[in-house]
Amino acid sequence: METGNLTVTVVGLGLIGGSMALGLKGKVGSLQGLDVSPEILREAAVRDMADRLGTDPRELLPGADLVVVALYPEQTRRFILENREVFSPGTLIMDVSGIKETLVRDLQAGLPDTVEFLGAHPMAGREGSGIRQAREEMFLGSYFLITPTERNTPEALGTASAVLELLGPRKIVELDPSRHDRLMAYTSQMPHVLAALLVDGFTGDSRFLLGGSFRDATRVASINEVLWSELFLENRDNLLEEVRAFRDRLDRFEQLLSAGDSQGLEQWLRKVREIRENIQAGEAGK
Amino acid sequence: METGNLTVTVVGLGLIGGSMALGLKGKVGSLQGLDVSPEILREAAVRDMADRLGTDPRELLPGADLVVVALYPEQTRRFILENREVFSPGTLIMDVSGIKETLVRDLQAGLPDTVEFLGAHPMAGREGSGIRQAREEMFLGSYFLITPTERNTPEALGTASAVLELLGPRKIVELDPSRHDRLMAYTSQMPHVLAALLVDGFTGDSRFLLGGSFRDATRVASINEVLWSELFLENRDNLLEEVRAFRDRLDRFEQLLSAGDSQGLEQWLRKVREIRENIQAGEAGK
Repeated sequence: METGNLTVTVVGLGLIGGSMALGLKGKVGSLQGLDVSPEILREAAVRDMADRLGTDPRELLPGADLVVVALYPEQTRRFILENREVFSPGTLIMDVSGIKETLVRDLQAGLPDTVEFLGAHPMAGREGSGIRQAREEMFLGSYFLITPTERNTPEALGTASAVLELLGPRKIVELDPSRHDRLMAYTSQMPHVLAALLVDGFTGDSRFLLGGSFRDATRVASINEVLWSELFLENRDNLLEEVRAFRDRLDRFEQLLSAGDSQGLEQWLRKVREIRENIQAGEAGK
Repeated sequence: METGNLTVTVVGLGLIGGSMALGLKGKVGSLQGLDVSPEILREAAVRDMADRLGTDPRELLPGADLVVVALYPEQTRRFILENREVFSPGTLIMDVSGIKETLVRDLQAGLPDTVEFLGAHPMAGREGSGIRQAREEMFLGSYFLITPTERNTPEALGTASAVLELLGPRKIVELDPSRHDRLMAYTSQMPHVLAALLVDGFTGDSRFLLGGSFRDATRVASINEVLWSELFLENRDNLLEEVRAFRDRLDRFEQLLSAGDSQGLEQWLRKVREIRENIQAGEAGK
């Protein structure tokens, strides 16, 4: 797949969109950046993020081979559906949001047959947000997930893969949208929920006893409440299942502790340490 | 308080004991290091950790003004009680373990009136263990907790403070032993419990979706199972209370989520973010 002639429009030049623009600029035929904020567009111009920048979908969507919508999930859905007639026939549209099942279903059902939607989700982007945190190497060495369904064509998958490979990911991984969401509830949403729940128990004189473990465990408690409340609710059923599974494990721990079962606690901690070490070994290949 | 003439013996030259030796050497009259392992003593000699090194309590305890026992809690208790008749009259004994109430009570009750025990706990030492991780600046800028009771004398507190100040702590904080343990259940043990419980839910195909939040939240799941099982059980009642308090907060989160209460979730996440930011601001003074 030749990418050198493609016109790619990135919608929303925040942390992820800005990084995609930086990562693709100069590697595709034309990289266009769309944002509603003049301030963000000024910053994008200063950082030379795109060949063409603007605020008007009617200028920057038609003619694009690929449109990457890098907005919050609800905005993503709304933006794509509102502009459903603006995309040129043959356009492939992708998103980057952390929620897939409902979004993919709604968009694939709501778009004209002449355009195609493919769900995508880069496993990158840590703390921080906004264009100022964007960087070209954001996706380098990380998994890039795509969630095709039976409505996606081999051609679209080929284009998506070819463009995403330009960002230097570790691997492009295909996942079923519903499986993606269940796994996300565990790997992403639960860490945020647990961090927030831990912080929520803070009392003033705890401050003298804060060590590295508390710092690490609560690092992700500082999150954008609007985005995360939305992510939690969009994935409610999966997250509720993970909450219940977590409570079951908490109950089992409580039983071991309550019973004073030193051998049981040691065995459990050893098992957990081994799982964690295996995860780290897998990540080291990154 | 003049520290230049004091003889200090550090028992157990691991991460904490080794770092204390490195931090005090040359600042007190004589710094002695005691360990059962010839290998550790060789490493201590190579790193010039002490003025005098050895394996025999009968050689290195008598004549010490201050003995710092830097062993695991159960070993600390046993070592001090086994050597109760070996300490010279007037010796101040301190420990460094993360559990205080039962240890302080047992040792203050079990020692002869001629020697004095003061509980201490440095808020330092992150991942890693053993003498090779020891470093002189380990305690620099961190809180150093001491847990005096009505059995401790002003003279002992004066000596302890003067010596600990040599390590450059942010502040020496006095806490009641039982309050210390309750706070530790929250600030230290719960983060480890939650990290372990999260890792315990790992399934193989989660590996494609691991982001920074999972990494941060599970960093402390790789812990020494013998030490931590012991710490959990020594602090069982406090930890059980924290587990129950955590489950109550988890239940409230589940209700908000289950009810689809977007405003409630946002408010809660905002409150948590503010607490976390206040904690960070307090730490920045460090």
